[in-house]
Amino acid sequence: MIYDAIILGGGAAGLTAAIFLARKEMKTLVVTINVGGQNLLTEHEENYPGYLEKSGPKLMSLFEKQARSFGAEFVFGKATKVDKIENGFRVNLANGEDYDSRALILAYGKVPRALGIPGEDKFIGRGVSTSVVADAKSFVGKAVAIIGGGNSALEAADMMADIAKKVYIIHRRDSFRGDEVTVDKIKNKPHIEFVLNSVPVDIKGNKFVTALAVENVNTKQRKDLQVDGVFIEIGLVVDTNFVKHLVKVDEANEIVINQHAETSCTGIFAAGDVTNVPYKQTIISCGLGAIAALSAYMYLSKLEGKTGVKLDWG
Amino acid sequence: MIYDAIILGGGAAGLTAAIFLARKEMKTLVVTINVGGQNLLTEHEENYPGYLEKSGPKLMSLFEKQARSFGAEFVFGKATKVDKIENGFRVNLANGEDYDSRALILAYGKVPRALGIPGEDKFIGRGVSTSVVADAKSFVGKAVAIIGGGNSALEAADMMADIAKKVYIIHRRDSFRGDEVTVDKIKNKPHIEFVLNSVPVDIKGNKFVTALAVENVNTKQRKDLQVDGVFIEIGLVVDTNFVKHLVKVDEANEIVINQHAETSCTGIFAAGDVTNVPYKQTIISCGLGAIAALSAYMYLSKLEGKTGVKLDWG
Repeated sequence: MIYDAIILGGGAAGLTAAIFLARKEMKTLVVTINVGGQNLLTEHEENYPGYLEKSGPKLMSLFEKQARSFGAEFVFGKATKVDKIENGFRVNLANGEDYDSRALILAYGKVPRALGIPGEDKFIGRGVSTSVVADAKSFVGKAVAIIGGGNSALEAADMMADIAKKVYIIHRRDSFRGDEVTVDKIKNKPHIEFVLNSVPVDIKGNKFVTALAVENVNTKQRKDLQVDGVFIEIGLVVDTNFVKHLVKVDEANEIVINQHAETSCTGIFAAGDVTNVPYKQTIISCGLGAIAALSAYMYLSKLEGKTGVKLDWG
Repeated sequence: MIYDAIILGGGAAGLTAAIFLARKEMKTLVVTINVGGQNLLTEHEENYPGYLEKSGPKLMSLFEKQARSFGAEFVFGKATKVDKIENGFRVNLANGEDYDSRALILAYGKVPRALGIPGEDKFIGRGVSTSVVADAKSFVGKAVAIIGGGNSALEAADMMADIAKKVYIIHRRDSFRGDEVTVDKIKNKPHIEFVLNSVPVDIKGNKFVTALAVENVNTKQRKDLQVDGVFIEIGLVVDTNFVKHLVKVDEANEIVINQHAETSCTGIFAAGDVTNVPYKQTIISCGLGAIAALSAYMYLSKLEGKTGVKLDWG
C-alpha cells in the first residue's frame, strides 16, 4: 500500500497541499501532530483574505473539512525519520508506524524557540507557556510577563491585558517589529507596562512561577518582576535534522525551495515556514502549499507517463 | 499628494496586497477596472482554503471589505501608462486622471484569450461570450458550444448542462487538462457532447450566432454545430505592453519576479497571474500578493531610514 503523496504537517501549508492533491484525486495522507499548526496559537488572524472571524483554530478546522471532503486521510503522530525507498519514500513515526508514498511534501512548520534561561524548563506548564490562546485562562486576575517584540508577543499582550491584572512586555529593543496597528492598539491599554531594552535572565519560583528577573541591555541593571506567568513569544525555530540527509537546507536551517516549491531532492517538495520563504504568514504558507501540491501532481503524472497534463493555460 | 503604494489590479493578488499594506498603515491605493478580477467569472471556487461557499464574486467582496476596513482606497479605471518620476512612479488612467506613489505593485492579472476566427468579434455580446457566470442566463433552453479543455471550460460546461438543452465541448486534444473531479462529474451529464480533437474555425449567424463550424485536427473534416451561443474558455493572456519599459518580462510576456515578488525595477513589485508564477490559482495569487506587499513595506521602510523593521522571527 503506497500513497501518491504524504504531507508532513497539518498547518496552513500542509492542509492547503492536501486540499489541492486530494482534489486532483491523488491518494493523500497528512501526517501531523495536530490540525492547525501555528494557527492554533492565535485568535487574531486578521490577515487571512476572505476570513473575517479571526479565530486561527476555527480557520484551520475549515481547511481540514475541505481536505477531508476531497478524500485526504489523516494520521496523528510525530514523524521522526524519512528515507528514500524504491519508488518513493518511507516516513517513520514516533509510535513505530510507517507509511510509504511516491511523493513527499514537507510542511511541518516550526516549533517555539526557547529562551535558554534558568527556570524555563522547570516551570513549563507551571507558569511558563508558549501559547496565550491555550493558557490565558489560567492567569485571570494575575500578573504576567510576555517576552518578545513581534506580532505574536503584541497580540498576546493585547489578549492578556483584558484578563490579567498586570502585563509586562519584555523586549530587547526599544522599537517593535509587529504591525503598527497592533502596537497602537495596546500602547494605551491599562495594565500594560513596557520593559524595553531588556532581556529575561531568570525565572524564579517554588512550585509555580513567582517572579521574572530581567536585565537592561544598556545599563546591565537587573530587577525582579513579580509575576505568576511568563509567556515566551520570541518566535519559532525549524527542525530539519531528520530530513537534512535528503534535502538541502540554508544557514537558517530552513529547507531551500525554488519557485515550484521543489527541494533539492526529486520527488520531495516543501512549503510554509519550514522553507526559506521570505515572510512567515498564513496566506503565504497557503500559496506555497498549493504550489507544492501542483508540482507534486505534475511529478506524479509524469511518473505514470501521463502526457498532456497541464494545470493552466499560461 | 503621493501614496505609499499604488496597486494595479483588484483581483485576489491585488486585494491581498492591499490588505497587507493597509494593515501596515501604508497609504494604499488600488487602481482597478473591477473588484474581483477572474474570480468574478466563477461560482465554483472549490480550492480556496477556508472558504466553503464557492462563489468567486462573494469571496472577492470579502477581500474588498477587509482591505477597506484597514484603510485602503480604491479608484476604478484602466491604467494605460506607468512612468518613473522623482521619488516614485506615476500611473495614468484612461480617463485622464493620474496618481503618484513611492512603490508600485503590478497585480492586474490577465484578460481572456481570443480564438482569432471569423465571427468572433462580430458576435461578441450577440452569442459569443467569455463568461458563463455573467451570460449563462441568456441561454436557458438553448444550444451552446464551449471552447476549451481546462477547468474553466469544464466548469462552464457543468453549469450550462443544467440550463441549456445541448452543450458541446470543443477541445483540440482527446484528454482534458482540468481537475479529474470536474471531468468525472460532467462525463455522464445529459445534454453534454464532447467534440474532441477539434478546433473551432468559423462562428456563423445573422444578427445572432446560429452555428459554429469545427474542424477535426486529424481528419481535417469540417462540420457545423447548430448553436445559439459560443463560450470561449481557452484561458487568458497577459498585457504587459504598458509596463515593459520598466520591468523585465519573459518569453510568455509575463513579468519576471523573484522569491520576494520583486521585479527587475527597484520599487516595483508584482504578484498573481501577470507574473511568471508557475500555476495560476486564487490562493497562489493571494500568497504572492502578501509577499509583494511585505516586500514593498520593507522597501518603503528603508526609504524612510527606519531601522529594526523586521517582519518575522526567521
